[in-house]
Amino acid sequence: YQGLLFFFFFFFFGAMYLLTTVYRRGLQAIPLSVDLWLHYITFLKENQDNSDGEAENRIRATYEHAVLAAGTDFRSDRLWEAYITWETEQEKLANVTAIYDRILGIPTQLYSQHFQKFKDHIQNNHPKHFLSEEEFVQMRVELAASSLSGTDGETPAEDLPPGTEDLPDPAKRVTEIENMRHKVIETRQEVFNHNEHEVSKRWAFEEGIKRPYFHVKALEKTQLTNWREYLDFELENGTPERVVVLFERCLIACALYEEFWMKYAKYLESYSIEGVRHIYKKACSMHLPKKPTVHLLWAAFEEQQANVEEARSILKNLEEAVPGLAMVRLRRVSLERRHGNLDEAESLLRDAIKNGKNASESSFYAVKLARQLLKVQRSLGKAKKVLLEAIEKDETSPKLYLNLLELEYSGDVQQNEADILACFDRALGSAMPLESRLTFSQRKVEFLEDFGSDVNVLVAAYDEHQRLLKESESLKRTAENGSEEPDAKRLRTDDAAAMMPDASQAAYNYNWYQYNQYAQYNQYYPPPPT
Amino acid sequence: YQGLLFFFFFFFFGAMYLLTTVYRRGLQAIPLSVDLWLHYITFLKENQDNSDGEAENRIRATYEHAVLAAGTDFRSDRLWEAYITWETEQEKLANVTAIYDRILGIPTQLYSQHFQKFKDHIQNNHPKHFLSEEEFVQMRVELAASSLSGTDGETPAEDLPPGTEDLPDPAKRVTEIENMRHKVIETRQEVFNHNEHEVSKRWAFEEGIKRPYFHVKALEKTQLTNWREYLDFELENGTPERVVVLFERCLIACALYEEFWMKYAKYLESYSIEGVRHIYKKACSMHLPKKPTVHLLWAAFEEQQANVEEARSILKNLEEAVPGLAMVRLRRVSLERRHGNLDEAESLLRDAIKNGKNASESSFYAVKLARQLLKVQRSLGKAKKVLLEAIEKDETSPKLYLNLLELEYSGDVQQNEADILACFDRALGSAMPLESRLTFSQRKVEFLEDFGSDVNVLVAAYDEHQRLLKESESLKRTAENGSEEPDAKRLRTDDAAAMMPDASQAAYNYNWYQYNQYAQYNQYYPPPPT
Repeated sequence: YQGLLFFFFFFFFGAMYLLTTVYRRGLQAIPLSVDLWLHYITFLKENQDNSDGEAENRIRATYEHAVLAAGTDFRSDRLWEAYITWETEQEKLANVTAIYDRILGIPTQLYSQHFQKFKDHIQNNHPKHFLSEEEFVQMRVELAASSLSGTDGETPAEDLPPGTEDLPDPAKRVTEIENMRHKVIETRQEVFNHNEHEVSKRWAFEEGIKRPYFHVKALEKTQLTNWREYLDFELENGTPERVVVLFERCLIACALYEEFWMKYAKYLESYSIEGVRHIYKKACSMHLPKKPTVHLLWAAFEEQQANVEEARSILKNLEEAVPGLAMVRLRRVSLERRHGNLDEAESLLRDAIKNGKNASESSFYAVKLARQLLKVQRSLGKAKKVLLEAIEKDETSPKLYLNLLELEYSGDVQQNEADILACFDRALGSAMPLESRLTFSQRKVEFLEDFGSDVNVLVAAYDEHQRLLKESESLKRTAENGSEEPDAKRLRTDDAAAMMPDASQAAYNYNWYQYNQYAQYNQYYPPPPT
Repeated sequence: YQGLLFFFFFFFFGAMYLLTTVYRRGLQAIPLSVDLWLHYITFLKENQDNSDGEAENRIRATYEHAVLAAGTDFRSDRLWEAYITWETEQEKLANVTAIYDRILGIPTQLYSQHFQKFKDHIQNNHPKHFLSEEEFVQMRVELAASSLSGTDGETPAEDLPPGTEDLPDPAKRVTEIENMRHKVIETRQEVFNHNEHEVSKRWAFEEGIKRPYFHVKALEKTQLTNWREYLDFELENGTPERVVVLFERCLIACALYEEFWMKYAKYLESYSIEGVRHIYKKACSMHLPKKPTVHLLWAAFEEQQANVEEARSILKNLEEAVPGLAMVRLRRVSLERRHGNLDEAESLLRDAIKNGKNASESSFYAVKLARQLLKVQRSLGKAKKVLLEAIEKDETSPKLYLNLLELEYSGDVQQNEADILACFDRALGSAMPLESRLTFSQRKVEFLEDFGSDVNVLVAAYDEHQRLLKESESLKRTAENGSEEPDAKRLRTDDAAAMMPDASQAAYNYNWYQYNQYAQYNQYYPPPPT
């Protein structure tokens, strides 16, 4: 990956000291801007001190940086043309050929125009000029060799060894020039054909790019899809250089879509940690200061790089920018937990409980804290305390009762039977909606069936459950204002009633109580008389 | 409750030796059948040996049993009339009055007719006959006393002390008879008024009974409701005798509805264990041999009475009659568990697993067994083995993977992290439907967030989850055959995708992972680019 790293070098740092401060920042920010490169070079030409013999080389170097940075862009033709024109002006025709040899292999919009101009360049100039000396000599040798083999050893030996001087025989001279032109173009023809094929594969994608520039207005779905598919295509087929350039182009148009930043960062991971970091920084600090996901990934990345402090502050800053995101707070908690700062993790959760913007948010964090205290700090007592306090503040949250149950259940069910039942009764005695209480009483019955020690308690719980079912049934009926349906219909609603505790499990289901299982067979306990 | 027990005595056993074998069984089965009683008594009359002086008493005793058994039935009038007619034939007019004194206090259909006939009975007969001697004497005293106070001490003292002989003064004699008739009827008038009120409260219920006899055809909902409400009314207001008689009537018409048997048994619990047992036996052995619920209650009742062997065989018989009911097998298991036969409980579950009628039923029992092994036998190893074997047979059951997870999670999450992750990966690598695997990968991500030790693993799990989400999204899109909605619409489906793991929790939800919580805030991890 030498090439690629070199490449980044220019992208992110090279520019720093190679470009004059005026353009430096701009080109650093948008290294793909052909216009900016051209303006910059014009600026250099105008402001250079021509007495200095290095002037030409300085311009050439800048063109080189420009094509390295932007030259694989499908729409970089104007840059290449400028470079070619300039070298032509400098009458460095061999350089011109060399530049053509590069552009002819790069899929760009005007690929065939280049080939046309290349052929003119060859036709209108003498091989001595459009070839370097070595190339010229080598080609003469080759041609001579082939013509030798062509002739039956008739050619006089004194012609050899050959030099760069014109051939004495005018006919041979013309033939040689023609042969050389022919050979040069012929070899380029293959490159052209292959490149044309490459262009054809990208054409539709390029056509699909309706808005290559940045705009705050959201992009159409089709545009986004096109970018995604184009990127996936280059990831599959393109060189790293092409992929990176496409990402850079994409992130001009799609700078506000974190998915592309994340995709880019992910891609760079296998090439350059610094590159990844640069992308995350650019995305989060410049374009998407309030998008949580990319920040979370950035923080995770820095944590992976063992920059815990950096990760910590990324999350902290995000939380200041966008307060109240559960996922961010929880990531801060888990960061501290992973690095053994259990007290900090705990106080982050306690703070979230205290500042929850409503009861259910506080309960949500209370559940998280209780689990952490139970499973990480291994303190059942503290965990229980947290849940009990939460229940005092949020008496109608099934989740809190459920987690309290889980807590009691996590121990020895024989020893804890009393506590578990007390917890059930706390829930049943609460102000929770009837449907929720119904679910708890169903659970109580099944807990007693599975683990209870006393059949009397089981039967009592069953009766209690029947009463609740009856209550909810009559509520239902009054809702249907007690219409007198035919038995069949009646029956169906009865079934519904029977399944109801199962239907309403979504929020509360226990892993150790998967009632809806029962639905498959007979419902565990039948509906009440209605 | 002497009265009531006495009453049962007749109901269930008295009949045994008091009735001749011909009618015994019938009247034992349906003690409320007025017709049967009347036929039986006719039979007795015809077949009695009149030389025997006891004959009349034997008939009277039988009438007594009949009215005790059926006399509080709202429709028992014919029985009472027959009794009265017979006593009249025997010229025991005082007995007739005594019978009227009973029937006039009982709410029956023909309550006013009885009062009318009673008044005739009083008008057409002499107090000496329709009153017992003591009553007659006492009344004469009372009347004399009142007339004394009426007169100004003019009445000659020699009239006293009074006897039963006619008064010498014809005027006084007539007056006394009239006064007596007036007083007797006057006192009954109050009873009648009160009884009429009682009748009025029951009239609508009795009107509502369209089919008092048994029929296999189902009863209309309104009929059942009427029985329920009538029973609740008597339970509230009636004497135990009335309640029992109404239950007995109800269970003729509703013999096929277990709810009424259960209600009856529950009511009798506070009066007579034998009575309850009789009801359950009658319901389960005679009418509802295949209704699970009443059998379960019967078994629970016998277990409560410490008749474990009886409870055991009730459940066993039911299971033979109706094989494959989960609730029955589980009750058998819990019965054995409660009485310390853990091996028997285990083998009942293993047998259910082996003979499950399909994979998911076997898995259902496997989950139950695993829980019992873990929580009751306290053998995590055995529990794990059960689940792993079950997974081999039923590779696509989320419940099995979920319970395996629960198993690993129940221990020390730090120490078990590897096992827990292995379990997640087993699920993710399984042939489960994508939606289920999606839920597991979401869970995996959140597990790692809450308890994982390595941020790299967390990030990897997150990427994996994104891939799955993407997969399911594109499935969704192909389903919607990739229509090009406007962004807004698009967005909504994205949200849907993000919430999807929450929405599809019903069957799998963990107590320690209540994702749908997240829906309230931001979804924990965003949808993939689509």
